[in-house]
Amino acid sequence: MNHLELNETHDINLTSWVESANEKGCDYPIQNLPFAEFRRKNSNEAFRCGVAIGNKVLDLTAVLESHVFPVELNRALEACSEPTLNRFMGMGAETWSLLRLNLSRGLAMDSDLQGSLKGYLIDMQSVEYSLPCQIGDYTDFYTSLHHATNVGKLFRPDNPLLPNYKWIPIGYHGRSSSIKVSGHPVHRPVGQLKPPSQETPTLEPCKRLDYELEVGIYIGSGNEMGSSIALDEADQHVFGYCLFNDWSARDIQAWEYVPLGPFLGKSFASTISPWIVTSEALIPYRQSWSRDETDPQPLDYLESKQNREQGAVDIKLQVALQTQSMQQQGVEPVILSKSTFAYSYWTVAQMVTHHSVNGCNLQPGDFFGSGTQSGPGVEELGSLLELSEGGKKSIDLPGGESRTFLQDGDTVIMTGYCEKEGTARIGFGEAVGVVVP
Amino acid sequence: MNHLELNETHDINLTSWVESANEKGCDYPIQNLPFAEFRRKNSNEAFRCGVAIGNKVLDLTAVLESHVFPVELNRALEACSEPTLNRFMGMGAETWSLLRLNLSRGLAMDSDLQGSLKGYLIDMQSVEYSLPCQIGDYTDFYTSLHHATNVGKLFRPDNPLLPNYKWIPIGYHGRSSSIKVSGHPVHRPVGQLKPPSQETPTLEPCKRLDYELEVGIYIGSGNEMGSSIALDEADQHVFGYCLFNDWSARDIQAWEYVPLGPFLGKSFASTISPWIVTSEALIPYRQSWSRDETDPQPLDYLESKQNREQGAVDIKLQVALQTQSMQQQGVEPVILSKSTFAYSYWTVAQMVTHHSVNGCNLQPGDFFGSGTQSGPGVEELGSLLELSEGGKKSIDLPGGESRTFLQDGDTVIMTGYCEKEGTARIGFGEAVGVVVP
Repeated sequence: MNHLELNETHDINLTSWVESANEKGCDYPIQNLPFAEFRRKNSNEAFRCGVAIGNKVLDLTAVLESHVFPVELNRALEACSEPTLNRFMGMGAETWSLLRLNLSRGLAMDSDLQGSLKGYLIDMQSVEYSLPCQIGDYTDFYTSLHHATNVGKLFRPDNPLLPNYKWIPIGYHGRSSSIKVSGHPVHRPVGQLKPPSQETPTLEPCKRLDYELEVGIYIGSGNEMGSSIALDEADQHVFGYCLFNDWSARDIQAWEYVPLGPFLGKSFASTISPWIVTSEALIPYRQSWSRDETDPQPLDYLESKQNREQGAVDIKLQVALQTQSMQQQGVEPVILSKSTFAYSYWTVAQMVTHHSVNGCNLQPGDFFGSGTQSGPGVEELGSLLELSEGGKKSIDLPGGESRTFLQDGDTVIMTGYCEKEGTARIGFGEAVGVVVP
Repeated sequence: MNHLELNETHDINLTSWVESANEKGCDYPIQNLPFAEFRRKNSNEAFRCGVAIGNKVLDLTAVLESHVFPVELNRALEACSEPTLNRFMGMGAETWSLLRLNLSRGLAMDSDLQGSLKGYLIDMQSVEYSLPCQIGDYTDFYTSLHHATNVGKLFRPDNPLLPNYKWIPIGYHGRSSSIKVSGHPVHRPVGQLKPPSQETPTLEPCKRLDYELEVGIYIGSGNEMGSSIALDEADQHVFGYCLFNDWSARDIQAWEYVPLGPFLGKSFASTISPWIVTSEALIPYRQSWSRDETDPQPLDYLESKQNREQGAVDIKLQVALQTQSMQQQGVEPVILSKSTFAYSYWTVAQMVTHHSVNGCNLQPGDFFGSGTQSGPGVEELGSLLELSEGGKKSIDLPGGESRTFLQDGDTVIMTGYCEKEGTARIGFGEAVGVVVP
């Protein structure tokens, strides 16, 4: 697979015989082709891999069974007919790319395969999703300097940013079992709370429930325990990206997190968007990664020309809120903030390389959270903790309500996309969750 | 399954037709019957479940195929023929108990099944082990008050124990992928070090490599997301126990762990002993769990008569060290410390209940580390960090060497057992790891 072939899928003029894919504003044009595990809603079908194109899902199991693709793709298509994508993810970047190239050709306007593939398209509205893979280990990073500084100020006004922040892509292990796909309800957690007004803790429902606007990153091919992944190889190990809501119970977290880090304040729920946008589809949106002149130069293992010139990805992110009352009044969700992953202080390649530098084995299907992606502006803050200045400032909503933290019945909707002049829009779909008591 | 039947397996007078099981000091008498995943060494056989009896392993797949057990056990035996025990663990305490009862009867002296079962025994020396289950999520607790105080003193001399310690079973999410079975080599990790003498960090091999003497706990049946497990139900969710070495790179940890907790200082390797000793086999070694009168009463959800009277388990623990030079000189491993899990400030039931109180879903095969089980005495410290007082005090070894932290070629051997007057010895085998460069 050479770069000319890869870039074929990024030609802005490339259109599909699936007409909805060519509409302006569509999340899933032929340049995207993200992967998910799906089945028909309310059916007993097995979950299997599909690829989004316009408002349709292409069923890869049907594609396999129809033998329309070259035989060398059978191994990949077989892996895609399994209920988790782990085996396909472990096959490596060349295999992912070869399948994507064939999908792109088969779905392109004037493709000879139109007649066959048409029969394997399912309306996106009629499908439901599962987690796309079995997430072995989930690591949450903390890569937004703005978020780290904002949160640090609330806890340590004189010393917001810790000395290791600009040297280490700070991260911690998270809970895999409670990561669910978009639409899964989020139960307000119960936990030990000890506000400053109380001498001793009490067990109560969380009063400071929050979202965190993050990018999710799926590891494809891993590394052996005792080995590490070099910086310029790291992106080849990344299968793709999604949206990620790292729900947070700020009051539970505040009392429990010293000295070993967040635990029950996070492990009650996390929400992913169902579609994995491939690393390959994001190549046109890569941009230079830079720091302030006053920031320290990273250590050698986290520093390369390629990472400086192409390390950042401009994924535009947005979080919106619709309360139960807004829904009842027919008021549309209100946008709370907009940000971009390009603000991240550390690149995905740096996260991968740092994570494996100690010999830790990454595995296909491992998942990283980027950490809350806040930007420098007040309209770019990725959590209510920041927007409400630690709960001190109320946020007015259309319909007459206001919020500092989330209430039961609130729906949080995260969306994201890449777009720039001369390229197609690459959409991420959405990660949605409703808070229930 | 009633308690009289359960207790049959704890009769000290019960002996087996497998003679080695009746020998004094044997880890695996008929009262133990722990589970592991094994195959013949250097074979291409599939891993499958075996039960230890004396110096033999009973192959449960062969037992299934021979139809010597009642048909109602077939479902359990089928799950035991899989390469991971997750499905069996998820079947629940009654199923585990019923299988154990039948194994106990079949292996007892004068059993009618002796003729059939004899053919399904394999020499323990000729087998190798895999992880007994796929560990979905691994949580490491911090339940030794002595360890927390000792370590706290090194980091915060004036304020060793944090205010939440006596209210919350403190824990954090750990890395699952790098948990390996006893015998797997441990690569000395590379990481960012920033000793006080340096202005900025450097990437170097860890200089303060340590072990941690812990008990490992396997969750059997789980709970649905959004629900929680009540304290007096919690032990029914615990499948069993093992030994656990939570290898730690103290210098990597010191620089990285604020504010989100340990990460690469731990994720390079963890070692478990291969056999899971069932919760049921440990019933005779349960004892009252008590605190100092000055300690706060736990919140209601962590407090019950059953937990006070039977919450602690007296698992005697030991860690020994053999350096490469000791091995070459034929010097036996030297015991560095002895402790017991009965010292734990929190019980396993309290860990399970606290972990799920926020609605976090525990799953079959989830794993808890107990945290380093240090006792109050200087000969009861479960890590070199504590034994060497943070690296200040050298530990003399037979053969003329000394250590503050581990050197390449060092072998760390953890063993454990339960024993009290009038009961059989329930052995845990060993968790062994050699440090390699």
